[in-house]
Amino acid sequence: MVKTLEWTPAGVVMIDQTKLPRTVEFVTCHTYQDVATAIKDMIIRGAPAIGVAAAMGVALGALAASDESFEDEFATICATLGATRPTAVNLFWGIERMKRVRAGVAGQPLSDVRARLVAEALAVYEEDIAINQSIGAHGGPLVPDGKTVLTHCNAGALATAGYGTALGVIRSAYASGKKIDVYADETRPFLQGARLTAWELQQDNIPTKIITDNMAGHFLKDGRIGCVVVGADRIAGNGDVANKIGTYSVAVLAKENGVPFYVAAPISTLDLTLTSGTQIPIEQRPSLEVTHVFGVPVAPEGMEVENPAFDVTPARYVTAIITERGVAYPPFTESLKKLAAS
Amino acid sequence: MVKTLEWTPAGVVMIDQTKLPRTVEFVTCHTYQDVATAIKDMIIRGAPAIGVAAAMGVALGALAASDESFEDEFATICATLGATRPTAVNLFWGIERMKRVRAGVAGQPLSDVRARLVAEALAVYEEDIAINQSIGAHGGPLVPDGKTVLTHCNAGALATAGYGTALGVIRSAYASGKKIDVYADETRPFLQGARLTAWELQQDNIPTKIITDNMAGHFLKDGRIGCVVVGADRIAGNGDVANKIGTYSVAVLAKENGVPFYVAAPISTLDLTLTSGTQIPIEQRPSLEVTHVFGVPVAPEGMEVENPAFDVTPARYVTAIITERGVAYPPFTESLKKLAAS
Repeated sequence: MVKTLEWTPAGVVMIDQTKLPRTVEFVTCHTYQDVATAIKDMIIRGAPAIGVAAAMGVALGALAASDESFEDEFATICATLGATRPTAVNLFWGIERMKRVRAGVAGQPLSDVRARLVAEALAVYEEDIAINQSIGAHGGPLVPDGKTVLTHCNAGALATAGYGTALGVIRSAYASGKKIDVYADETRPFLQGARLTAWELQQDNIPTKIITDNMAGHFLKDGRIGCVVVGADRIAGNGDVANKIGTYSVAVLAKENGVPFYVAAPISTLDLTLTSGTQIPIEQRPSLEVTHVFGVPVAPEGMEVENPAFDVTPARYVTAIITERGVAYPPFTESLKKLAAS
Repeated sequence: MVKTLEWTPAGVVMIDQTKLPRTVEFVTCHTYQDVATAIKDMIIRGAPAIGVAAAMGVALGALAASDESFEDEFATICATLGATRPTAVNLFWGIERMKRVRAGVAGQPLSDVRARLVAEALAVYEEDIAINQSIGAHGGPLVPDGKTVLTHCNAGALATAGYGTALGVIRSAYASGKKIDVYADETRPFLQGARLTAWELQQDNIPTKIITDNMAGHFLKDGRIGCVVVGADRIAGNGDVANKIGTYSVAVLAKENGVPFYVAAPISTLDLTLTSGTQIPIEQRPSLEVTHVFGVPVAPEGMEVENPAFDVTPARYVTAIITERGVAYPPFTESLKKLAAS
């Protein structure tokens, strides 16, 4: 499996997720500004991957920051990376973690501080892979054998340091010998399902079909879908889930048809400071993502569009939330608090 | 407004709906085979438009059929046109109507038969426009003032001889002075919403925004949508509605959020021979429609896809069915039968 992102002597190397699946190209971020641009332009995307990239961005910035104005530059680095995308909480979690490390070594020589920050970014990366494998181990048993798993967007290796959250659950279920296949919502406008989920599952030889987003309801109704598994960008304390636009629709359609709807996400995606999903800021993305596909116009000249990148699925549609520390069931206010503290 | 299709001395002229919105190009069908190909390849689409095109195709074929083997050729013409697309019942309705006319003038000179068939095709065309205006008149009052109307696919002038069914309702409400705007689902894979609905509403200066299909639920939840209006390809006797893939999802999401869901269709879309929507054949379209957008690949090489062109919305999600003879409310088994007989 190709690496989503990697810390190298030349900088942070990322697979360019705007070019996949037909073009496999890598981008090297030499500066923290490069990392910020890569996050903003969705060269890298997916809540956990953004968290890792932000941590690496902070480390990259710290390496280049001058001794004279280190504190000011460190603050600017963190603020710049924090201003890239508003919804996925992992971004802020990654930056906060780096800030805590920096605070923990206050007073030490800056060369040691820089080394400590690089080590922390690498730890965030390694931990993320382990976390995903653990999410997979907890979630795999929930996937019904002999049926199709529906997933939306890409919550896979490409959305994380590796293995994936929702796709980690699918990989784990498949590896355990279950006879499953996958329907991947294409996930307009950015086509993460058609371009990314399909691509990485194809590489793993897990049987996969792409469907357009508006087909999900039809197949949920016809009985072939055993469960839905998606990732998350932010989960409020009450279990409301912000995730890629369209997740709410899939959740409602799953419930209407008696199909379990699972959310797979690391504990770092929880935002227990929020009591409800209505408090989660929803990013509006550029119109061009809707009006054009790979640069080809699909709408009349001058048409207005809406482009909210995320929606919020109320907790009542969520069957369970699968984390690296175990599976949370309703009522989520209690179960999530318990997992977060464990 | 550009004409969707037109009977001319050179043949049946159609606007090429595969090229819109950036390229406005016309195709002339010189033979009934050309018409059949145009229907199959979706140069013309939309249930009522297909019905009109089929009638014109039969007339075109009858003009060219030899005197010696007229009956055999007439049967072949009808069979060829009838084999183009399986779901929209208007296709079969249009052909059956031409067959009845032919049977009604059995024994008369073939030149008279041909003239009668051409006149009938023109009548089907003219009637369709009047029917749509009547659907608009019945449906307009149902549209809430001051809110957004959500529509899926294109049930507009381009899906009919003119004016449109669902868009006829919107046009009528807008013309009556209601302050409404329209959200058009882009309607993957063929993008009828982004390409056709947006284009024709833009020409009418009706305020319209395109959303991707997976955003519909989000906006139905947030309260701005006053009602949903869609067309239909076939309506079973119990009120189950076959329409463009994704309609079922929108209907479920509308009901979940207390938003009225209206279906606008001519009486010719009713199929009272069917007691349930499960009996409606669902066309499977080529994979290329999903894997490519205007020829640009959006999926990995060799990916499998599903591409059902339609889904069935159970009657329990339908608030009312708007026809040229009035509005049918549940229970539809009675109300539709009554309208059909009126």
